[in-house]
Amino acid sequence: MADRVFNFNPGPSTLPLSVLETVREELLDYRGTGMSVMEISHRSPEFEEINAAAMALARELMGLGNDYQVLFLGGGASTQFAMVPLNFLHEGETAAYADTGAWSAKAIKEARKIGDVHIAASSENTDYRSIPRPADIHYPDDAAYLHITSNNTIKGTQYQVFPDTGDVPLIADMSSDICSRRVDFSTFSLIYAGAQKNLGPAGVTMVVIRKDLLDRCRDGLPTMLDYRTHTEKNSTFNTPPVFGVYVVRLVLEWFMDQGGLEAVEEVNRAKKDAVYALLDAYPEYFKGTVEPRSRSWMNVTLRLPSEDLEKKLIAEAKEAGLVGLKGHRSVGGIRVSLYNAMPLDGAQRVAQFMEDFRKAN
Amino acid sequence: MADRVFNFNPGPSTLPLSVLETVREELLDYRGTGMSVMEISHRSPEFEEINAAAMALARELMGLGNDYQVLFLGGGASTQFAMVPLNFLHEGETAAYADTGAWSAKAIKEARKIGDVHIAASSENTDYRSIPRPADIHYPDDAAYLHITSNNTIKGTQYQVFPDTGDVPLIADMSSDICSRRVDFSTFSLIYAGAQKNLGPAGVTMVVIRKDLLDRCRDGLPTMLDYRTHTEKNSTFNTPPVFGVYVVRLVLEWFMDQGGLEAVEEVNRAKKDAVYALLDAYPEYFKGTVEPRSRSWMNVTLRLPSEDLEKKLIAEAKEAGLVGLKGHRSVGGIRVSLYNAMPLDGAQRVAQFMEDFRKAN
Repeated sequence: MADRVFNFNPGPSTLPLSVLETVREELLDYRGTGMSVMEISHRSPEFEEINAAAMALARELMGLGNDYQVLFLGGGASTQFAMVPLNFLHEGETAAYADTGAWSAKAIKEARKIGDVHIAASSENTDYRSIPRPADIHYPDDAAYLHITSNNTIKGTQYQVFPDTGDVPLIADMSSDICSRRVDFSTFSLIYAGAQKNLGPAGVTMVVIRKDLLDRCRDGLPTMLDYRTHTEKNSTFNTPPVFGVYVVRLVLEWFMDQGGLEAVEEVNRAKKDAVYALLDAYPEYFKGTVEPRSRSWMNVTLRLPSEDLEKKLIAEAKEAGLVGLKGHRSVGGIRVSLYNAMPLDGAQRVAQFMEDFRKAN
Repeated sequence: MADRVFNFNPGPSTLPLSVLETVREELLDYRGTGMSVMEISHRSPEFEEINAAAMALARELMGLGNDYQVLFLGGGASTQFAMVPLNFLHEGETAAYADTGAWSAKAIKEARKIGDVHIAASSENTDYRSIPRPADIHYPDDAAYLHITSNNTIKGTQYQVFPDTGDVPLIADMSSDICSRRVDFSTFSLIYAGAQKNLGPAGVTMVVIRKDLLDRCRDGLPTMLDYRTHTEKNSTFNTPPVFGVYVVRLVLEWFMDQGGLEAVEEVNRAKKDAVYALLDAYPEYFKGTVEPRSRSWMNVTLRLPSEDLEKKLIAEAKEAGLVGLKGHRSVGGIRVSLYNAMPLDGAQRVAQFMEDFRKAN
């Protein structure tokens, strides 16, 4: 595919080429049904197989047992910002949130509409250039839960160590680093992730929930906002985003074919190392914006010596088939997003391009 | 495509073949971007064009002006069941609902969680085999709104005349007949429709809202459940179901290429006439389950003289490439779903098949 570019967008972002090729091949006739996967019933054996396979693959990749339920929902992570407190922040309780930037702030805003919020830690004092250390995260022993944002796409930070919350349920928005590395997922009570960065297309959100947490769901919620609704029906209470779940299943299979999360992590490590090496080698030119211990593997953020150079790099990279390197509008600069489907080759090419650019400019 | 079947499933269901072919053709490289449409940013000019075109096409097809906003949301019509009363049924108010079957019942259930519900009409006394006449729909003058389900997929009924509600906002779930015929859409304050029957793939819901209704939205709602959030951002407050909106746009263009809703209606009329003609010609064999004036153009429901014959017809039809004819599990029998993308040829073939089956059995 000479015409395909390397897509460093922060999400929606690149998908594995082999997955796209499978989708294309099956598009008019899904595995002998005579229908597109977009046309099959969500009650058909074909979709039941897709859904069950996707759930099983997610659990297997994450090393989780049957005490966890995997859900594929619509509405995006933004709907999860509300569903988490609607279900689990009860009258008289306090929910703890670690504030690590814009996405945490959105989660906090929704929780405050529902009940009492305790800010367990905030990296606002470093302009969100760091992740709080576990020892610096404080919350009441009886907090309804602690919510964290595992990776912060805008500022380019990521938890490298997670807090041990004991009996307090740990809930994470992993939209931007789900399945990118080995994590002890069993320390989490609930994980959610919009698919469009690391798992598939926009329009499907993966939720992984420890089943014992379901006992705490608030009664009387709108049916679609109650996690029990979706758990009882394996995400088919209503018509799920069939096509999105199908693509997620293909991506999860692709992870497995690579060798599971150990192999995915290996590649992701090499990818981020290729780019951060430049920031370490030429710190006056490639100015990392993040405290090194909090560096994200997924979103490398940096500034060049001038905004003109940044614009030039972004434009010339685009010409070279390396697109989507512009930093978020709120922070400017350069952002290299290296989600799971970005091949090592792409990271190496962008690193080489940056090095060449530095020499020429 | 010799291998493609005619798909009479009740939803998700068939899509126009030319749309699927376009999707396949563009799948690895959306119009020269070097990316799949699944990989493009929802903030990109390419998606902005898709989104704007889809909104404009929907308004044009429905004959609506700028006083209406078109939204493309996740979460399905089931989420709209809750969003409607959350936004528009305020403390001390009563919302009126016409009960025409299982989907109405789900909408009513969600509204009752929020506030006072008045059943404006119910066809329960006919086992939901009819649609209430406008004169038989009664509600308080100060009702927050009247909610109807324009087409009922399970029982096979459809409104052929809509009530004139004057100052009371008329809200309709049109999931199963949106854009299937000419309707004076301007008599509605809010219309919602899951895409997967008549507009595109599952995972995107079209909402059409008269902007003056937005003044009545309840304050303090979760951000994602507030219609104002999505209106202010043209459905891009969060990452929308990009791929789904792309396919909906192609389907709306396909309607336009056919000649707009007048032409779509013409074909849909010929399709349902082809099947209902059998019910009228052989009422002892093809036993229509619905009062004739309430017959749905979208879902023709019938019984044969025995369940064995029904099973046999469904199985033999499948062998003949006519799939999805089984009635809903709650009512049994035969259901022929004839959504917008089913070609006239498909309806004629199923009618011919049924006639041949009758002669042979």
